[in-house]
Amino acid sequence: MNNRLTAFGEFLLRLHCSDDKRFLQSTGFTPWYAGAEANLCVLLARLGIQTQYITRVPENDLAAAGIHQLKGHGVGTDHILYGGHKLGLYFTETGNFIRSTRVIYDRAGSAFTELEPGMINWDKVLEGQQYFHWTGVAAAVSASAAEVCGEGIRAAQQKNMTISADFNYRATLWQYGKSPAEVMPALLQPSHVAVADLDALKVYFNIRTDETLSWQDKFISACNQLKTYMPHLRTLGMSFRLPEGDNLLYTGAIMHNGQPYFSDLKVAMPPVKEPIGTGDAFTAGMLFELINQASPQQIINFAAACGVLKQSIPGDWALISKEEINALIAGGISGRVSR
Amino acid sequence: MNNRLTAFGEFLLRLHCSDDKRFLQSTGFTPWYAGAEANLCVLLARLGIQTQYITRVPENDLAAAGIHQLKGHGVGTDHILYGGHKLGLYFTETGNFIRSTRVIYDRAGSAFTELEPGMINWDKVLEGQQYFHWTGVAAAVSASAAEVCGEGIRAAQQKNMTISADFNYRATLWQYGKSPAEVMPALLQPSHVAVADLDALKVYFNIRTDETLSWQDKFISACNQLKTYMPHLRTLGMSFRLPEGDNLLYTGAIMHNGQPYFSDLKVAMPPVKEPIGTGDAFTAGMLFELINQASPQQIINFAAACGVLKQSIPGDWALISKEEINALIAGGISGRVSR
Amino acid sequence: MNNRLTAFGEFLLRLHCSDDKRFLQSTGFTPWYAGAEANLCVLLARLGIQTQYITRVPENDLAAAGIHQLKGHGVGTDHILYGGHKLGLYFTETGNFIRSTRVIYDRAGSAFTELEPGMINWDKVLEGQQYFHWTGVAAAVSASAAEVCGEGIRAAQQKNMTISADFNYRATLWQYGKSPAEVMPALLQPSHVAVADLDALKVYFNIRTDETLSWQDKFISACNQLKTYMPHLRTLGMSFRLPEGDNLLYTGAIMHNGQPYFSDLKVAMPPVKEPIGTGDAFTAGMLFELINQASPQQIINFAAACGVLKQSIPGDWALISKEEINALIAGGISGRVSR
Amino acid sequence: MNNRLTAFGEFLLRLHCSDDKRFLQSTGFTPWYAGAEANLCVLLARLGIQTQYITRVPENDLAAAGIHQLKGHGVGTDHILYGGHKLGLYFTETGNFIRSTRVIYDRAGSAFTELEPGMINWDKVLEGQQYFHWTGVAAAVSASAAEVCGEGIRAAQQKNMTISADFNYRATLWQYGKSPAEVMPALLQPSHVAVADLDALKVYFNIRTDETLSWQDKFISACNQLKTYMPHLRTLGMSFRLPEGDNLLYTGAIMHNGQPYFSDLKVAMPPVKEPIGTGDAFTAGMLFELINQASPQQIINFAAACGVLKQSIPGDWALISKEEINALIAGGISGRVSR
Amino acid sequence: MNNRLTAFGEFLLRLHCSDDKRFLQSTGFTPWYAGAEANLCVLLARLGIQTQYITRVPENDLAAAGIHQLKGHGVGTDHILYGGHKLGLYFTETGNFIRSTRVIYDRAGSAFTELEPGMINWDKVLEGQQYFHWTGVAAAVSASAAEVCGEGIRAAQQKNMTISADFNYRATLWQYGKSPAEVMPALLQPSHVAVADLDALKVYFNIRTDETLSWQDKFISACNQLKTYMPHLRTLGMSFRLPEGDNLLYTGAIMHNGQPYFSDLKVAMPPVKEPIGTGDAFTAGMLFELINQASPQQIINFAAACGVLKQSIPGDWALISKEEINALIAGGISGRVSR
Amino acid sequence: MNNRLTAFGEFLLRLHCSDDKRFLQSTGFTPWYAGAEANLCVLLARLGIQTQYITRVPENDLAAAGIHQLKGHGVGTDHILYGGHKLGLYFTETGNFIRSTRVIYDRAGSAFTELEPGMINWDKVLEGQQYFHWTGVAAAVSASAAEVCGEGIRAAQQKNMTISADFNYRATLWQYGKSPAEVMPALLQPSHVAVADLDALKVYFNIRTDETLSWQDKFISACNQLKTYMPHLRTLGMSFRLPEGDNLLYTGAIMHNGQPYFSDLKVAMPPVKEPIGTGDAFTAGMLFELINQASPQQIINFAAACGVLKQSIPGDWALISKEEINALIAGGISGRVSR
Repeated sequence: MNNRLTAFGEFLLRLHCSDDKRFLQSTGFTPWYAGAEANLCVLLARLGIQTQYITRVPENDLAAAGIHQLKGHGVGTDHILYGGHKLGLYFTETGNFIRSTRVIYDRAGSAFTELEPGMINWDKVLEGQQYFHWTGVAAAVSASAAEVCGEGIRAAQQKNMTISADFNYRATLWQYGKSPAEVMPALLQPSHVAVADLDALKVYFNIRTDETLSWQDKFISACNQLKTYMPHLRTLGMSFRLPEGDNLLYTGAIMHNGQPYFSDLKVAMPPVKEPIGTGDAFTAGMLFELINQASPQQIINFAAACGVLKQSIPGDWALISKEEINALIAGGISGRVSR
Repeated sequence: MNNRLTAFGEFLLRLHCSDDKRFLQSTGFTPWYAGAEANLCVLLARLGIQTQYITRVPENDLAAAGIHQLKGHGVGTDHILYGGHKLGLYFTETGNFIRSTRVIYDRAGSAFTELEPGMINWDKVLEGQQYFHWTGVAAAVSASAAEVCGEGIRAAQQKNMTISADFNYRATLWQYGKSPAEVMPALLQPSHVAVADLDALKVYFNIRTDETLSWQDKFISACNQLKTYMPHLRTLGMSFRLPEGDNLLYTGAIMHNGQPYFSDLKVAMPPVKEPIGTGDAFTAGMLFELINQASPQQIINFAAACGVLKQSIPGDWALISKEEINALIAGGISGRVSR
Repeated sequence: MNNRLTAFGEFLLRLHCSDDKRFLQSTGFTPWYAGAEANLCVLLARLGIQTQYITRVPENDLAAAGIHQLKGHGVGTDHILYGGHKLGLYFTETGNFIRSTRVIYDRAGSAFTELEPGMINWDKVLEGQQYFHWTGVAAAVSASAAEVCGEGIRAAQQKNMTISADFNYRATLWQYGKSPAEVMPALLQPSHVAVADLDALKVYFNIRTDETLSWQDKFISACNQLKTYMPHLRTLGMSFRLPEGDNLLYTGAIMHNGQPYFSDLKVAMPPVKEPIGTGDAFTAGMLFELINQASPQQIINFAAACGVLKQSIPGDWALISKEEINALIAGGISGRVSR
Repeated sequence: MNNRLTAFGEFLLRLHCSDDKRFLQSTGFTPWYAGAEANLCVLLARLGIQTQYITRVPENDLAAAGIHQLKGHGVGTDHILYGGHKLGLYFTETGNFIRSTRVIYDRAGSAFTELEPGMINWDKVLEGQQYFHWTGVAAAVSASAAEVCGEGIRAAQQKNMTISADFNYRATLWQYGKSPAEVMPALLQPSHVAVADLDALKVYFNIRTDETLSWQDKFISACNQLKTYMPHLRTLGMSFRLPEGDNLLYTGAIMHNGQPYFSDLKVAMPPVKEPIGTGDAFTAGMLFELINQASPQQIINFAAACGVLKQSIPGDWALISKEEINALIAGGISGRVSR
Repeated sequence: MNNRLTAFGEFLLRLHCSDDKRFLQSTGFTPWYAGAEANLCVLLARLGIQTQYITRVPENDLAAAGIHQLKGHGVGTDHILYGGHKLGLYFTETGNFIRSTRVIYDRAGSAFTELEPGMINWDKVLEGQQYFHWTGVAAAVSASAAEVCGEGIRAAQQKNMTISADFNYRATLWQYGKSPAEVMPALLQPSHVAVADLDALKVYFNIRTDETLSWQDKFISACNQLKTYMPHLRTLGMSFRLPEGDNLLYTGAIMHNGQPYFSDLKVAMPPVKEPIGTGDAFTAGMLFELINQASPQQIINFAAACGVLKQSIPGDWALISKEEINALIAGGISGRVSR
Repeated sequence: MNNRLTAFGEFLLRLHCSDDKRFLQSTGFTPWYAGAEANLCVLLARLGIQTQYITRVPENDLAAAGIHQLKGHGVGTDHILYGGHKLGLYFTETGNFIRSTRVIYDRAGSAFTELEPGMINWDKVLEGQQYFHWTGVAAAVSASAAEVCGEGIRAAQQKNMTISADFNYRATLWQYGKSPAEVMPALLQPSHVAVADLDALKVYFNIRTDETLSWQDKFISACNQLKTYMPHLRTLGMSFRLPEGDNLLYTGAIMHNGQPYFSDLKVAMPPVKEPIGTGDAFTAGMLFELINQASPQQIINFAAACGVLKQSIPGDWALISKEEINALIAGGISGRVSR
């Protein structure tokens, strides 16, 4: 099958304050393994895509416990590099509609940030693969990791693989002396598939949209502007949280071969406690249906449904099934008991 | 007092994924004792009705721990049978407005499903009792349990007891070779009181209602059709979850001596995490006010309030008081602190 | 700086049923330290005010653990009295939009209720302090505690301190033979700043407002009536929960130098699980901006934002920062992730 | 059957620091219901004796939850009095071989301590009962509770019941102005059965034993001295913790009709974490075999085995079975898996 | 490499009472995946052997979560069969030196017990494998599972694989109408490697040893008697718990090519709370060193060290490393901190 | 009073696998704040010494929560520096007598390791202080932290403060290019008080003792050899774990003004689960009695008792009282309940 996908990025251990406490109150931390690209791999592998995950972690039992979980979900881990001394960490406290979810990163000096060009044998790693996926986070954590990311992208180009990128802009990363606008355009240029948001477009490419436009027209305008910078781009996805009364409606759109499609799904989100990983689930859903050559409308519906469902699940991974995704697309939100 | 009620059904241990995790993530299970008829007994006993519970459980400490809890709430357990090797189990994962609550049953081969006709001395067990209650679940788990249920119903008839039945249709049970439509009509025929929903009416009696009708008219139409099948029926209750905007309104109705009554209570449910046991609380509330010979409007209000309140309490049992029920009927939902 | 504030009241250990269980189900209790005046001190100290807390606790490790936490948050504890045998306790079970949060007090006979006049050297304790704060709860728990509260108020008057009082009426306290109306007016009379609600105005001063008025006009009417009883009052705050559709809007108002100001913040509260401590956070926010000589509109906005934010945090203490308060005032509720 | 036993004493909620933390660290409390006499009732009821428990508790859900548990274990609760405002509490932190288990009592002012003579209709309560049991704790908490205890004892005498008493001396109670030596001798005088320890004999009766004697001879000497004070005493039990190397051996003795018997069981205790309730289990075991008219050697073996087994079970109640007790007597300690 | 091992048996979910509570007290269950053969696979896979596990589980998320964990530890799961409706369960409560660990099985009717001959394509499954392992539990749960076990053994014989068997006698299983003595001898006959204990030898083969012999001589005598029944047996292992003072010494022995070897390791076990899985770790350790062609003395030392270390780890799986095993063999028990 | 002590070192957050699980199993982490010097400060502050703690932590809520706890215990935190991006972390899994406690450090790049000379105004910080304490860990984590440590030592010398040092050798730290033998001798040289162990003496000074000597003579020999390197040393303490049968005896010794003293306390440790922080408690106990000018025998008894008691308390801090320490010295280990 032509469904072999390799994703590259940092593997993280998230330590989440238990029992909805704040950092200042915390008496226990719940561990979740994470990382934008790992999150994507887990959902794709669960949906049946043959994914492999490339990262670098130290040889200790904290990393091993996470790799075990990836294996359990069927993600290929054979080419993960071992070395360095630190697993990337991040700490979180639960938010809610009143307060934001808050994150304290502790990733500096991790095994991944200390990746050096040449460490990964990309030629071997990408052998027999059709898709290469990376996100802006991988390029944000260190200059050398960004270089290694570039190595991977070039190797994928040489192998005529489909390259997908999630813009994934995190302002508090990018501490190594270069701005995103210096680094990201070149890395993003060869992508065939991408997921972005309006903020990242501003930061990476200085693309701006008229504030008076509807969200749909902002999307179309942004896509049109992006064309010159990303000439190979065939599909661009974007998710939206639209305020409506006291609620937020979650939905999404794709620009596919120059045509915009908007998801039929517009879900008024209940006060979810787990917003983290939503975007990665959206991206995984979009890639899944792209790989399956589904219709554009089905692609964006599936992606949006993945994003909605993720918000109902604690942790970073969208542990959902095709049946659940399709049920949501077909019937919306219900609140029933499945006995 | 004329308030002695006997309920018959399977006693279950529910194992619920702790901390809102999914089955695939679960690192702990919270135990709740359950069973539609046990749930009903607990609420009725707490409200002051003299209830006894008839079931069959194995002689082990898992069953004993549950029987202890029933005793604690004042449910009569003297005639429970001991034998067999397995307590019925079910596993659940929390749902929410996005995802359904999910159930994995593990009840096959339980002490209750292996009940055989003749095992229960119904004549002795029902001595001095005025009410007999059972639900469709008891007839769904095995042919022999359905037969024993029939024994109980016939014994109750001979003693001129009031018989109440909750239709309680569970599609994933009914594995023993007979369809509900073959079994249920004869068992339900002698009932004086019943609780149903439109799905069960379709499955058990092939009763259908015009989709274009209002929910109130559907209810009236269904009741009218049911008359020929259940000639002794004096009171039929039904609860409803009505979509309204992004909310679900919970309410209920009864047909009592041929007249329909609709609850004054229509509560926009907040995103409850515990839908399980709602129907049993509704039924218990309805029976309680029937036994008290309350007015039809009070009966349906009380029943609906029990159903609403149950959704605010984890576990299968409606651990609520008359004061709380009446406060809800009087004042609706508030969100205050009772100091 | 002129920002030294002393608060006087009972220190409590709250034992809260874990995992949203009811008292009847509880298998664990989460400890929170509490007390209206301690709650206020914690937020003021975190915002930078030099607060000290005067109370009386027994010499045991349950009290010590709470004092440690006060110290941790920067509250002055040097003048706390040690003696007696019991720390005041209260037990709570979580409410939600369906069911009220419930409280069982166990405070009778506590070290604080056994305070006797003369035990506190008010002259020394209030040396160099500019603000004195107390609440109606301190006067409600015992005759002698009410007397000691009066001692403190008189000492504060002699030192020309600003006196602030939270009406804080709790019907189930007040068991010592005097009614609130006999005790509170004299104690409240010297206050310069107060927080009240319409119920307490009725109980303490028999002030009533026309039910047909808007909430704003009720507020103005009540303030006007209160003038004769509290001649020194410069600022009176009140918070409101206004029903709107299926939601409750939280907002607040102050009467400042005779002029009413209404908060710009009107927040539709999501189904919060922690209403306790909201009023104390509101009061702390109001005092903070009064001490800072902020504009009246800023005072009420800040107070209301503190009240809103508190409801997102488990426990009795508003562990929030100036940044979070200002962000809420500026942007309302969002549900974002702060990475 | 002649096995109806009534026990009288204070019902308590114990709040135990979870996860072996100290009071100063505690982030959660595990609730256990307790009270020397309740502990005894639970074991006796589980072993098949018809026990009823007389106490006084407030009408709230904290008390109700405990009463539910007593009912669950088969203890009769029909004559429990409801009133007052406070359930007796005690807080504990886990000890181990290095540090003692520590207790903070919070029982003053409880519903039980406020019992007044005449409140209990002893004549009705003791109707049809053969055994009356009380302990020194009931007389230690307040003058009026001691008087009510005396009422019960006199009523039991008039009905020719067998009276058993556990000396149960707690130095930190006895705060009401009388010393144990003033109160206990008269209350103990009518007892037919008792459990004591050498400390309590000293405090209550000024009975002393020669320090140079073996523990067996101390026991015999103490029993002989006690005769003059307790002329009706037929059976006196005592448990011992004997140091041996780095271990403590647990064992027991009874003086029965003037003859001493020493348990065959001498168990080197592993580092148990739950010493609380050991004495009550010992007493219950002794009473059980006395009621069964077992041989003196069997009585003391059974009592000692109950004491040993209790130390393996968290909480105050000896949730053990006759099978486990007999297996321990027969085979000692093993460490096997019972599959 | 010649280190491909296939193990066949039932996969189980164990639900263990949390916080050292008894069944009667349990307020939470900790899940552990288990099964004698799965336990062995996990340790062997962690040590570097290529293991695959053959079992049958239902298609639900409780089974899937366990399979994920096996994959995580590197156990091959590609040939696991899906079908049936129930995952085998067992419930446990923690024992200690005073009380036994107790087990309640709930395995009847599981997907594994309903295995039928012909369901497993043994020829395909065992392709390229060198070792086949099974235990007495697989033959104990149902007649058809025992037959399927026999199919596997015969297929392994035809492929000239090395067959190893753990006698693993569980008295409470074996409910299907045949005694172990009727079933086990024929199944065990072809084994080249086995682990047994003296009880199982008695039950399966009526082999008895003189009670007056030392444990070493009992071992030798039993091995000699077994020869006639198991003519292909090259290596037999046995572990021992030897009482010594108040301690139990854990050690082991093998008979290898007719020569007895006794482990140098004799460890006084501290009061371990997790005896479950000890035997499976011992067996895995023995097989590992047999596959490695280690010296007999090293084989038994390694096996005994695995058995010792397992007892320090909660759950059924020996999550230990070669380094830890070798450190224990080299240096015994220490109690240090590895920083 | 002359009891002002300043300690300097790294502040750490320890994340400990909950429920005795291994890293590979962990489903929750319990947070403990730590650091050898912080541990010492907490015990000294609790015993009544005026301690202040100098460290550097990032400005985030993880650090703030720990500083709050220090304040709560009375440790002076006014001169703590804020800056950098990372709080030092370490992860632990519980050991026991079978397996070692294991540690994974994650401290590289922490705010403390990035301390630079000149950042701390030692002159101001040490004003009015009499004692300066540091440990080998502070010098092990980075070259610049070691330099800053040297700055502090020199400042303390200039102020004629008493300097105490804990050798505290951690092999896995010391990654910055210098060996301990290059760094430590010069830093240790000015110390008046020290705690060491035989390993550290070997590594830092190449001091060796004859393996055939008794532990007492090894201690004396080592002290004598150390004199030339540490000419100002008046008091050297050392703790010992001596194997005795299956137990380890914990005890200690000091060399004081040239005379050796051995603790009367030799405690057979039960299988403790928390060895961490033992040494710091020993050191704190020794310093406390030195500051109090106790007799040498009392000093070493007190220090050893602190070390023993710490092992009974989870977390890094010895939350013990003078009463508990003295009770242990007086009476040894008991296992009683303190009611």
